[in-house]
Parts: sequence; C-alpha cells; structure tokens
Amino acid sequence: MCAKDIIDLVEEKDFEGLTAAELEAQHPADAAETIEGLDISDQVKFVKQLPIKDAAESIAEMDDNDQKALIQHLNRGLAARIVERMAPDDATDLLVGLDDDLRQALLKRVPEEERAELKTLLTFDPDTAGGVMNTEVVILDQNLDADQAISKLREEVEDKEIPYYAYLTDSKDRLVGVVSLRDLLLAKRGGPLKELVKTQNLITVGYNVDKENVAHLIAHYNLLALPVVDFGNRLLGVVTVDDVIDIIHEEASEDMQTMVGAGADETTDSPVAFSVKKRIPWLILNVVNSAIAAYVVHLFDQEIATMAILAALMQIVSNQAGNTGQQALAVMIRQLAMEKFDRKKAWYAVFREIKIGILNSMVISVLVFICIAFMTHDYALATCMAVALIIDMLVGSLSGASIPLILKEIGRDPAQASSIFLTTITDSIGFWSFLGLAGIFVI
Amino acid sequence: MCAKDIIDLVEEKDFEGLTAAELEAQHPADAAETIEGLDISDQVKFVKQLPIKDAAESIAEMDDNDQKALIQHLNRGLAARIVERMAPDDATDLLVGLDDDLRQALLKRVPEEERAELKTLLTFDPDTAGGVMNTEVVILDQNLDADQAISKLREEVEDKEIPYYAYLTDSKDRLVGVVSLRDLLLAKRGGPLKELVKTQNLITVGYNVDKENVAHLIAHYNLLALPVVDFGNRLLGVVTVDDVIDIIHEEASEDMQTMVGAGADETTDSPVAFSVKKRIPWLILNVVNSAIAAYVVHLFDQEIATMAILAALMQIVSNQAGNTGQQALAVMIRQLAMEKFDRKKAWYAVFREIKIGILNSMVISVLVFICIAFMTHDYALATCMAVALIIDMLVGSLSGASIPLILKEIGRDPAQASSIFLTTITDSIGFWSFLGLAGIFVI
Repeated sequence: MCAKDIIDLVEEKDFEGLTAAELEAQHPADAAETIEGLDISDQVKFVKQLPIKDAAESIAEMDDNDQKALIQHLNRGLAARIVERMAPDDATDLLVGLDDDLRQALLKRVPEEERAELKTLLTFDPDTAGGVMNTEVVILDQNLDADQAISKLREEVEDKEIPYYAYLTDSKDRLVGVVSLRDLLLAKRGGPLKELVKTQNLITVGYNVDKENVAHLIAHYNLLALPVVDFGNRLLGVVTVDDVIDIIHEEASEDMQTMVGAGADETTDSPVAFSVKKRIPWLILNVVNSAIAAYVVHLFDQEIATMAILAALMQIVSNQAGNTGQQALAVMIRQLAMEKFDRKKAWYAVFREIKIGILNSMVISVLVFICIAFMTHDYALATCMAVALIIDMLVGSLSGASIPLILKEIGRDPAQASSIFLTTITDSIGFWSFLGLAGIFVI
Repeated sequence: MCAKDIIDLVEEKDFEGLTAAELEAQHPADAAETIEGLDISDQVKFVKQLPIKDAAESIAEMDDNDQKALIQHLNRGLAARIVERMAPDDATDLLVGLDDDLRQALLKRVPEEERAELKTLLTFDPDTAGGVMNTEVVILDQNLDADQAISKLREEVEDKEIPYYAYLTDSKDRLVGVVSLRDLLLAKRGGPLKELVKTQNLITVGYNVDKENVAHLIAHYNLLALPVVDFGNRLLGVVTVDDVIDIIHEEASEDMQTMVGAGADETTDSPVAFSVKKRIPWLILNVVNSAIAAYVVHLFDQEIATMAILAALMQIVSNQAGNTGQQALAVMIRQLAMEKFDRKKAWYAVFREIKIGILNSMVISVLVFICIAFMTHDYALATCMAVALIIDMLVGSLSGASIPLILKEIGRDPAQASSIFLTTITDSIGFWSFLGLAGIFVI
C-alpha cells in the first residue's frame, strides 16, 4: 500500500455498507477516523460488534471530543471493559476528559489491579511527564547478562508496548541505566548488563516536568523514549516519541491560536460554546485596545475635519506597521517554540528584526512617497506619509520582536494575545505620528 | 542528570576555558549548541581538535546556517573527512546547503563508495521522502529464521543507525515485509521470517512523496520508521521518526510565518538580507491591499469631514472584525496542518466558525452600543456601530475560516498571506458598512 492509497484511505469518508469485519481489518488509526465519520448511533453499533481489543485500540486513536461523546453513549459495562484493555496512558487521557461521575463509575467497574494503576496515573498533572508517560516498561536486573536479558525479554515482551529500550534497576528499584535492544544484540556475551551502562550519561525527567520540556528533550537528543522518575530516582514510566509528536502539534496550535486570542486547545471539533467562551475575553480586550487607537484619532478630529483624506491614508500607515510587526512576531514565537529560551540569543534576534524593519520601511516609504506625490502633487503630505511609515514600521518591528520576550520574561505564554497588543501599539503610534505630522506640516 | 540540569546545560552559553575534551564529552546535540555559541574562529579551532567522529556527529546537529558557515571555514580536506563520517542523510542535508563549487570540491575528496551514495541522495528533491530518508537499513533474507536473523543482526548492526526494524526482501530485492526487533525476539524459533509478515499490511512511501505527507503517515500510524521504495518496490531507505519531528516543526513555522508574509524557512539566524527579500513582496501586496481599504474610506470624505469622530470609530469596527477573522484563520490553518484535508469536514468547520461569529458579534455589538450610547447619547450612531460590527465580524468569521480552504482548493499553501487578504476584506467591509450606515442614518 503506497502513501497515496493510504492518504485516500485516511480521507475516505463514505461508509455505505461498512461492516464490522472491514472496520476490524483497518489499522486502529484508520478505524478511529472511520468511526469519527459515523453518526453516534452507528458508532455505538459498530463498537459493540468489534472485539474489545480492537475497540480499545481504535477508540484510543480518536480525537478527544469524539472519544468522550462515544464513551458517554456506550453502556458502562462495555465502556469499562474498553478502558481496561487500553494502554494505561491512553486510558488515563480518556478518563481525564470525562465528567467525575462517569469516570468514577467506570473506574469502579475496572478490576482492582488496573484501577489502582489508573488512579495513580490520574493523580499526575496531564501537562507533565507523569501525565503523558506510559507505564508499560521492561525492567531488567542489572546483574543479568545479555543472553539472559534477551530470553527474559522473550517472555516478558508479549504484553508490553514495543520496548525499544529496557531499563536496568538496582536492588532498591533505582534506575541505573538503559539498554536498547540494539545494545543487547551487540553486547559481548557473558558480562553483566551493568557493565554496558557504567559510563552511560543517563537522561531522565522528573514526573512533574512540563510536557513541553519533555518534548524538547526527546527532540533535542533524538530519543525514542525518555524515562520518568520520582524524587528517589525510581522508574515510574517512559514518555515515548509518538506522544512527543502530539505534544509538538499541540504546542504549535497553542502558539498560533493564543497569538490572536483563540483558545489554546480549540479544534474544529470543539463545541461552539467552548470556543465562544475562550475567545470573548480577548475580543473584549481587543475592543478596549482599539478604543485606545480610536481615541488617538479622536485627538485629531480638527485636522481630519479640515482634510478628510487623512482618515483614508492613516490606514495605510497602521496596516503596514501592523503587518511588519506580525512578521517579526511570528518568527520570534517560533524560535521560542523550537529552542529553549536563551536570553542573549533572543535579544540578538530583536536587533536583527530592527535591521530588517529599517530596510523594509525605507523601501515601502519611498514607494508610497512616489505614489502619493504622483497622485496628489502634495509633497508635504507625501513626506508625512513616508516619515510616519518609517517611524511606525520600526515601532512594529521592535514591538513584534519584543512582545513575546517580555511576556516570557514576566512568566506568561509568549504568544498569548501578542498580536492584539501589537496592533494596539502600531495603530496608535501610526495614527499619532501621521496625523500629528500632517497637522503640523500639511494643514 | 535530570531535565532541569539538561535545560541549563543546553542554555549554558559561557565558554570561558572550554576544552576540546569537555566538548568531546558532551552529547553531540549539546556539543552542537556549544559550538554554535562560539566565534567562527573558535569553532574551527575546536573542531580541529575533536575526533572526526565526534566532529561529524556534532556538526550534523547544528542549525543549517551555522553548519554552512563552519564548513566554509574549515580546510576542505578536514571538511570532506567530516562529511564522509556523517550519516548519509545528514551529509546530504549539509551538502545541499553549500554552494556548488564547495559541494563538488568536497564530493571529490570523499572515497568512491560514499561519493556514489551521496550523489544518488543529492538527486532526490529535499522536500520529498527520498530527500529526508536514511539509507542505513538492515535488510534480511525472508528465508532466514528468527535466530539466524538475530545472529546476522549481531554482525551487521555495528555500523548502522539504531535499527528498530529489519526489512525483508525477496530474490529480486523487492520489499516483502518489515520485522521489528520485538517481532524477532518473540518469534517462535524455526519458521522463516516470511511467515511472520504473510498477513502484514505493509506501509511504504514512494521516494517522491512530499515530506509533509510522510510526516502525516508516521504520526498517523505511530511508526518509528517508514520504508521508502522506488517504482519497482525496491527498498531505498527509511524515514525515521526523529526526522519527522523536525518536519513537523518546519511545517508549523511555515504556516505561522507565511500567514503574515514572512519567509517559510526564516529563523532568527537567517541573514537580514534573506528575510528582507522574503518579506518585501508581501509588504508591497499589503500596501496595495490597504490602499483598497483607504479608497473605501476616501469614498466617504464628505461624511468624515462633517463628522470627524467617524474616522475614530471605524477603527474599532475593522479591528474587531479583523481579530475575529484571525481567530477563525488560526484554528482552520492548524486543522489543515494536523489532519489530511477532508473537504466535508473542512466546510463543516466553516459553518462552526460562522455560528461562533454570530454569538461573539452579538455580545460585542451590545457592549459597544452601550458604551457609545452612554458616552455620546447619539443612539443612531451607536446603532450604526452595532450593526456594522455584526456585519463585519460575520464577514471576518466567514473569510477567516474560508480563505485557507480556498487557497488549498486552488492548490496554494493554505496559510500564505492569508492574514493579509483577511485584513483587506474586514477593513474594507468594516469601513464601508459603518461609514455607509452613518452617512444615511446619522448625518
């Protein structure tokens, strides 16, 4: 099956005559999309027909909102059996999204052992390493040799998620090292595993580390899995690279959406009410901010009344500076998203944006000067436009580049509403500089 | 070493008294950042002192711009030896970024065998599967049994990147299946490997598939590596999940930056001239577009001259609609980035945004009506504001949600300059509706 086919398959949304057997034959990730495309009643119908294992794997791959809706519509006995069969981390993600009553009801129906594990996982903050970790890890005694380890793996591996790594612990369950299957295959026969990891620079995270930092670490070191430990350095679980891909996607959505005051976790599946609740506060902030810009214009009622064309031209200045600022803003937010914050490098980047702003503003202002002069033959007016453009585009570059850094420095999300703050500044300064100059030199 | 330490280490930028030995002891990813923090002369000095292998691994982890600069400053003999020791995919990425002369000069110095491979890799489009694939794969004869395979791996694996998977080929080198090390460990002894993959639904990509689609496939199916094949279904290499993380980061930067007319591949390390060249065309488009909005205002010079406050208030309408539209825009672009394009679901999302727009515009317009009425006691004016806000915020929601889809439908990048087009629409409609209404009902 080549990519093209798969992409078609993934896009395939025509379920006429779909049978449970066909659904069962699909990869869980595809089955999930197929199920999401059905009406809730059909979803329930098909899930009932699927083997529990397939149902669990497919539902684990569904979007949060669809997943929640489906579970709510299943009878609790079936829902509980499905939760029981999911990987503990997937089951926890699902349970976190449910209302307390339903979550408790399902947990009650899960066998003692699984329930205990899920309850533990539910105590971790979902935005931390503990909240995203997978607890199905292969642990080996550091005193085994490679061959013993391999045969132990052969017994153990059956019911675990693909272990790329096995973890070595000491007599007190403390993590002493990690060996990849590759290491085991390469290991000279005989020696105990602890020899393999003697010089190893073991990378771990505490369970309470923010998941975005976990993603940074895994990406930075090209790891397939990162062990999560408690304060006693005991192994709690691992965060795997496939979880990291989801985290990176979430991060990117957060930045892009919070930048303009949409909800960090909004998707096109979010309920309308949810999105409205997330966006209204920022829209109100935006009204207040644009009122500031409006007030600046109001200060020049006199000039505008005398020369109404100013009201038309001031748009061009503020728009241009706003766009210039957003270009700087976007590049800065992405830097902060991809690399750990480095103050020196960050402020160096601000100077870079100012240089860009100087060059761009000169090009644009010359262009605009020529057009205005050519159309109006009012050279004073054309000059005011050009000067105001240079001033405001520079302000735009400086603000666009520094707003995310300032937000970061005061411990806020660097993207949050940054575009709204930027526009307020570029509009106000743009109107003030252009109308002010025009008032003095043109009228 | 816990995450906190590593993050500090990663951020550590004080190189007083750094020694080559310390650099050598660092993880290549950290060594790369350390090197990037040095002046070019020190970079050269330290790289000369490093063992070729460590130099190659560290330089492979550096940012493109820094990497290119460093290689240009090394003498060609050393540079060639470093390229030779890099993983072929990393070496290719590096060579692609160099000027033709230097690339040819380095290739000449690379031993025949490696040169042939690099030349082949260089023929692939860097934005396709072939351009990002890793050619160091473990290939097994499908007729081996698990134990034979494991002992073969033990010999072969030495000089390959960590193989999570081994690939099975037939007598004509055609790919017939993939087995994970886990499968090998679990396999009942005796049977040939081809038995393991008989019922396998093998997922592969053609070498010419866009790398973003490759990333989607790996993320969708939670793969660690995806085999890349030619039209004869012969195995060319694999794309590994760590490359996918970079691709997803690039994609997110592209969307956020092209949305406002910055360069898709701009970073805070890009040369100023590069960024200016990328942004100027869009700034010029923005001038033209804001000239359209300015012209709309110009049509109402009469009204504005009579009642200058209109010029101040029209800002609030256009700003509000612009922000509303950008919220829809951001959510839509992210949907298109994370899921394969699904026409039905996409247009459903537009309706969702319109519903949100209706609710938000009603809240905001009531709020604004009250403020204006309270401050000016001019109820006609307040009403015009409220109505114009509802009209323009709806236009904003509709445009913001549909612009990316329209761009996509006509085969363009859904994000490209979308914010610029959006603002033109919301500004023009906002000024026109507000000033138009005010002209009729207020003056």
